[in-house]
Amino acid sequence: MATDGAAETVEISGHIIDEGVLSSMLDDIRGYGGDYAIVDMRVGKDSGDTSTARIEVRADTEQDLQRLLMRLQTRGANMLDPGDLQLMVADADGVFPDSFYSTTNLATQVWLAGRWVGVEQPEMDCGLEVFGPPDAPRVRTVAMSDVRAGMQIVCSASGVRVIPLPRADINDEFGFMDSEVSSEKPQAVLIRRVADGMRAAKAAGKKVLWVGGPAIVHTGAAPALVAMVDAGFVDVLFAGNALATHDIESSLYGTSLGVDLGQARGVKHGHEHHIRAINQIRRCGSIVAAVDQGVLTGGVMHALVRCGGRYVLVGSVRDDGPLPEVYTDVLAGQRAMRAELYSDSAPGETSIGYCLMVATMLHSVATGNILPASIPLVCVDINPATVTKLADRGSSQAQGIVTDVGLFLHQLAAELTSYSIR
Amino acid sequence: MATDGAAETVEISGHIIDEGVLSSMLDDIRGYGGDYAIVDMRVGKDSGDTSTARIEVRADTEQDLQRLLMRLQTRGANMLDPGDLQLMVADADGVFPDSFYSTTNLATQVWLAGRWVGVEQPEMDCGLEVFGPPDAPRVRTVAMSDVRAGMQIVCSASGVRVIPLPRADINDEFGFMDSEVSSEKPQAVLIRRVADGMRAAKAAGKKVLWVGGPAIVHTGAAPALVAMVDAGFVDVLFAGNALATHDIESSLYGTSLGVDLGQARGVKHGHEHHIRAINQIRRCGSIVAAVDQGVLTGGVMHALVRCGGRYVLVGSVRDDGPLPEVYTDVLAGQRAMRAELYSDSAPGETSIGYCLMVATMLHSVATGNILPASIPLVCVDINPATVTKLADRGSSQAQGIVTDVGLFLHQLAAELTSYSIR
Amino acid sequence: MATDGAAETVEISGHIIDEGVLSSMLDDIRGYGGDYAIVDMRVGKDSGDTSTARIEVRADTEQDLQRLLMRLQTRGANMLDPGDLQLMVADADGVFPDSFYSTTNLATQVWLAGRWVGVEQPEMDCGLEVFGPPDAPRVRTVAMSDVRAGMQIVCSASGVRVIPLPRADINDEFGFMDSEVSSEKPQAVLIRRVADGMRAAKAAGKKVLWVGGPAIVHTGAAPALVAMVDAGFVDVLFAGNALATHDIESSLYGTSLGVDLGQARGVKHGHEHHIRAINQIRRCGSIVAAVDQGVLTGGVMHALVRCGGRYVLVGSVRDDGPLPEVYTDVLAGQRAMRAELYSDSAPGETSIGYCLMVATMLHSVATGNILPASIPLVCVDINPATVTKLADRGSSQAQGIVTDVGLFLHQLAAELTSYSIR
Amino acid sequence: MATDGAAETVEISGHIIDEGVLSSMLDDIRGYGGDYAIVDMRVGKDSGDTSTARIEVRADTEQDLQRLLMRLQTRGANMLDPGDLQLMVADADGVFPDSFYSTTNLATQVWLAGRWVGVEQPEMDCGLEVFGPPDAPRVRTVAMSDVRAGMQIVCSASGVRVIPLPRADINDEFGFMDSEVSSEKPQAVLIRRVADGMRAAKAAGKKVLWVGGPAIVHTGAAPALVAMVDAGFVDVLFAGNALATHDIESSLYGTSLGVDLGQARGVKHGHEHHIRAINQIRRCGSIVAAVDQGVLTGGVMHALVRCGGRYVLVGSVRDDGPLPEVYTDVLAGQRAMRAELYSDSAPGETSIGYCLMVATMLHSVATGNILPASIPLVCVDINPATVTKLADRGSSQAQGIVTDVGLFLHQLAAELTSYSIR
Repeated sequence: MATDGAAETVEISGHIIDEGVLSSMLDDIRGYGGDYAIVDMRVGKDSGDTSTARIEVRADTEQDLQRLLMRLQTRGANMLDPGDLQLMVADADGVFPDSFYSTTNLATQVWLAGRWVGVEQPEMDCGLEVFGPPDAPRVRTVAMSDVRAGMQIVCSASGVRVIPLPRADINDEFGFMDSEVSSEKPQAVLIRRVADGMRAAKAAGKKVLWVGGPAIVHTGAAPALVAMVDAGFVDVLFAGNALATHDIESSLYGTSLGVDLGQARGVKHGHEHHIRAINQIRRCGSIVAAVDQGVLTGGVMHALVRCGGRYVLVGSVRDDGPLPEVYTDVLAGQRAMRAELYSDSAPGETSIGYCLMVATMLHSVATGNILPASIPLVCVDINPATVTKLADRGSSQAQGIVTDVGLFLHQLAAELTSYSIR
Repeated sequence: MATDGAAETVEISGHIIDEGVLSSMLDDIRGYGGDYAIVDMRVGKDSGDTSTARIEVRADTEQDLQRLLMRLQTRGANMLDPGDLQLMVADADGVFPDSFYSTTNLATQVWLAGRWVGVEQPEMDCGLEVFGPPDAPRVRTVAMSDVRAGMQIVCSASGVRVIPLPRADINDEFGFMDSEVSSEKPQAVLIRRVADGMRAAKAAGKKVLWVGGPAIVHTGAAPALVAMVDAGFVDVLFAGNALATHDIESSLYGTSLGVDLGQARGVKHGHEHHIRAINQIRRCGSIVAAVDQGVLTGGVMHALVRCGGRYVLVGSVRDDGPLPEVYTDVLAGQRAMRAELYSDSAPGETSIGYCLMVATMLHSVATGNILPASIPLVCVDINPATVTKLADRGSSQAQGIVTDVGLFLHQLAAELTSYSIR
Repeated sequence: MATDGAAETVEISGHIIDEGVLSSMLDDIRGYGGDYAIVDMRVGKDSGDTSTARIEVRADTEQDLQRLLMRLQTRGANMLDPGDLQLMVADADGVFPDSFYSTTNLATQVWLAGRWVGVEQPEMDCGLEVFGPPDAPRVRTVAMSDVRAGMQIVCSASGVRVIPLPRADINDEFGFMDSEVSSEKPQAVLIRRVADGMRAAKAAGKKVLWVGGPAIVHTGAAPALVAMVDAGFVDVLFAGNALATHDIESSLYGTSLGVDLGQARGVKHGHEHHIRAINQIRRCGSIVAAVDQGVLTGGVMHALVRCGGRYVLVGSVRDDGPLPEVYTDVLAGQRAMRAELYSDSAPGETSIGYCLMVATMLHSVATGNILPASIPLVCVDINPATVTKLADRGSSQAQGIVTDVGLFLHQLAAELTSYSIR
Repeated sequence: MATDGAAETVEISGHIIDEGVLSSMLDDIRGYGGDYAIVDMRVGKDSGDTSTARIEVRADTEQDLQRLLMRLQTRGANMLDPGDLQLMVADADGVFPDSFYSTTNLATQVWLAGRWVGVEQPEMDCGLEVFGPPDAPRVRTVAMSDVRAGMQIVCSASGVRVIPLPRADINDEFGFMDSEVSSEKPQAVLIRRVADGMRAAKAAGKKVLWVGGPAIVHTGAAPALVAMVDAGFVDVLFAGNALATHDIESSLYGTSLGVDLGQARGVKHGHEHHIRAINQIRRCGSIVAAVDQGVLTGGVMHALVRCGGRYVLVGSVRDDGPLPEVYTDVLAGQRAMRAELYSDSAPGETSIGYCLMVATMLHSVATGNILPASIPLVCVDINPATVTKLADRGSSQAQGIVTDVGLFLHQLAAELTSYSIR
């Protein structure tokens, strides 16, 4: 335990006791090898009241302290004296200065030109770039691979503050899962809440973002998803080559991975169908062209093209083909996903109002990486590990539903549209 | 490998090539350390034709050979010369003669008084007892714990033959899962087939047997199950203390394991409710009495009592309480379950026409142990291991559906009744 | 929310902030539909200091309040004014008075004859019986099924206090899993700590209790367990019919569930071996007799008999046979398990110093039900749900290790004994 | 069922009955909507003998028939009259002719210039390109994305034959898992066989290929893997950004995903360490440079650099950073992996003699996609779904071990080297 070295006092307010925030902070301090003293604490008397704590945080070295302070900011604890912003110029492409401020996905502000300026495009595990005219400076997240020599990069936690999610966002509106992920839950109730969340986003003029894996097709839920596309509840889809391929295979051949979806029985490993489906779309030139040429006449991708929905397909090393629109460069794919989050909106603000992730760990984590924490996020998978991993990677706002993907989507479509299973 | 020792020739007919039966038999022979020669083989030419094989089976000792022959009978391979029935008198309660014939759950016949007599109550891992008048002898399975000194017990495979399931039973009517158990299946199709299977059983004047675990209540599906009880699709329920307890807790307190089912959020570990619910029913004397006294006014157990449904609750070592009707002796419980299978029917024949197992490994395996292989059997669980284990324990006729139990039951109820989720 | 009705003030001390205890309490209060006001709070300044809170708890009715108070006691929050003990006489066998105090597995005291008397045999989900001479009254837990008319039963939380586990027990010595259960952990470190825990228990003159499932045998780990029996690290074993049966099958036939353990390949479903193994032991009369008669010459059960180890085998509804010593009545089995916990020790105190649960959900939960929370408890399973379920059932002190049972036991035996895999 | 239309007769020889090959073929024919007649069948008499079957296969159309014939080739059934090779010229980059022959990962030959010419680089889901001088033509697989206009591509199954894996490869040497994947296996036996397989590959002058995920580091097994690198048992490593990043994070900071590997406890979500580790290596320019500059001094990547091991790191859309050597274009990554398989060997032949996949579904499937079926392939994961999915994707030769990755690698290193856990 450190008893001398560097020290700083932080303050945190809110429902810090009843929601375990304070407890998590003290865990962090110990976990980083630091120490603390509670300098002051004002406890809210009644169950609706907030509390405030001031905590002196100590670490062995100034560097350790700065890292710990950045960490505590993710809990909403900011320095009592925020200090001055420290900027360093990146000296090489693709590399941050060593002491760069590592971002969270929470709303963040920096002290610039005498006022708190909000960070545009909040995203975790990035740096902060200050840009724009000296008299009206702006600040935005920048991914490591997008750093260019000469950029002004924020270093240390000094002059930075984080605004934690307000309680309502977490607990009242979408807070149906608390900390527990379990298949032994009344899922029908949860589906209704997802439907409510989507309707609320649309009513607020926001977009609904879907992230999906191929099990949507394998479980026979593509018609349910098509119904939701038609009804306007799928503004954007992030997926990989597999979802689109099996959707298209299913439209062209009536099978998915060789399984006859109308019969629920299949030819084991009989799925060279998918490679022929990809070849056919490549011959057309693109999915859009395949729709235009009348080759592709059904399924999820067809519905998206027909209804003006947007999609970003990003490839992976296990892909066959891939389909024409698939980004084979994963950084280009990430950039395309970010662009989609921030289109049709004010600079630095996202147009997404709700995000539903279904049956894909890879694309769910990828989307969680770039999504601001303020966006309601629900992850649906039959495997509890997918949900847990998403939260472990930092998307702590994610709500998980462990259930059958096919029945979930049938039921959700029935809630949102006139769709019925038969 | 054995090249001398004992030998016997067996014959098998049917779709033994295209269904892999022959391949499994040869595996068995090797697995038991035996050897074989294919003496004769007539292969059906067209896809609808059957084939016949005669195979000489060899083992090191006569005892090894007899065990292997009993094993091969489970595949439907019987001795060309069935031989004479061998009977030994049990010399002690609860113990078979060493060389006892160990049963399968398939239809079985023994050569008695010059004719093939069908085994009553076919059940796996039992012995065969010959009883009745010498001029009209009968034969039935007897569990090891029910053996009494003096019983006539069949020994060795001699004079015994097994009738494998006809192809139609396995593949056409209920064969929707083949060998694969997966969550990536179009489950809505499967639910429809379960509904069809239940309707067919009822139309044939048979009963529908349910085996259920407490997740039925935790997932909020009790109202769906109540609707199916009301509609007459739940003639018999096998379960443990937990399903009944959480169902009753839910009726008395609105929670299940402390989870508020209307809100999908709960008090963690806040479930001393269940122990109070049990105490209350014990005070009434029985579940039936609790219904009569107006204490228990809703839920699955209430519906069963009200509709004249039958139930057998068998306890386990982890039980609290338990509820009054729960069998605390597991052998007594097994006997009560067997009695339920064979009530309301001709001697030795079951009145059950369909069995659905939902969310319980313990009671599913227990029921699989005593159920004839001829009864359609579907096992539903979110955990693939439950389904796999059931098949591994010998219930090879079991069809598995890996899905969310709650959504499955909602959907099944909607298929079978006028139930709707809202 | 209740704003009038009944109210009581409770006090809690300790590391209530940094360990999240206070946060859990406030959750409980809301979960039970109550309300609160923090009357006083003294926060420990440094990371080693304890804090104290006084909280006024309110509920709609006196009955609701009493239930909530009992709940809060499980967190270590006792009434500022403990009040007078309330006793009622049980009016029927097997039934508690309605307002009975429902126990936790924590150390508990009642105010009797002017002093705090410790509860003997602390166990969750029981009642408290006051017995003994009026001038030296004692108090012990009593299971619902053991209640007899005329017993003095403690009702409401008045006059009862609970002593929460000291921090050291949870976090320093055995606290290697915190709240997270994951297969992605450095398991070798954890195995070392289990070995240390067992050695510490033995050094303190305590017994090591094992709870095991049949996967111990299937994974080829029986020789490792035998080595630990031989070395004195298995004083007591709680298991079911399956572990003993497959262990004995393996000794008699070299297979487990039909799998040749030396070859890791098996005859699928070729396991009527187990039923013959059971029959053989039943003929001997008991496992002990089978060892004496030279029938059983190896394996875990043989080692236990040879080394004077104790075992309690409790049956379940899925059992074949069962083996002679298996308790077929689950209540009798529970009583035998309790008796084992409290043998060779002062009245009401357990002789168990460490408990390891391996590969069985049924028996782990059953043991967790009756084990005092003060006993270090580690649960090992390849399925995370087993560990989670154990904690959910109230054994919150349980530490989980998600790993391969076979490799775990090989490695543990290598730590504790001269055992090596080859 | 088709009774007229197109027809062709195929022949298959080998252990087609006892290994279920014939049964699978007939399944395929039905699955593809075709029909068959067994024209001739010669059954091997004894258990060591092979059998031969001639089967007339019928389909509705010539196109359906060709697809079915290609499918049956994967079982080892070739046309009695192989017919003439049909070649078409690719008319566009990245697109096959519609009727292209879709490859398996089995050894394959085409009838070219009057003789059977072996296909170079057998790989599934590719096409076949004929190239080289007209008098000495060669044939190799070509991935769809590598097709260039003007290439000669094989179309239909005519003139193509597939050589199924010899029995020894599947069943005797590495055949320890049969069809079943289970955690309830004697894993210590399996580990010994993996060690034997690696030693055999090295003794034959072949390379050992590893495919690994980050759980190798999380489970504390990096030192075991380092020992195997040092001992020469890791010639090539295929992985993603995550394994290398967490390995390097662990070397630089002593943590992996924020977990202190020496203590098995961590800061939840406290893993911005990884992003700093990546930044540091990017500053160095490459992993090799980081080793040269003394920045990276331990761990798996360090050991590979030091010992001359090869690695291919391919990125994915969820990556942070990524590390400098990571291929961000997945097609470039696939090409680099293929290049590694075919380096240091005769043209078209792989230098890999054994492949072990540990704890990664993404990279395991990607490697399975490009690996010839002749290479022994073992997949180790605690999640049975990973192993199942690999086999479902076509790597039917894959043997699965469901176990704890950390303990597996410790034990494997102890088998292969002088490594010990302490």
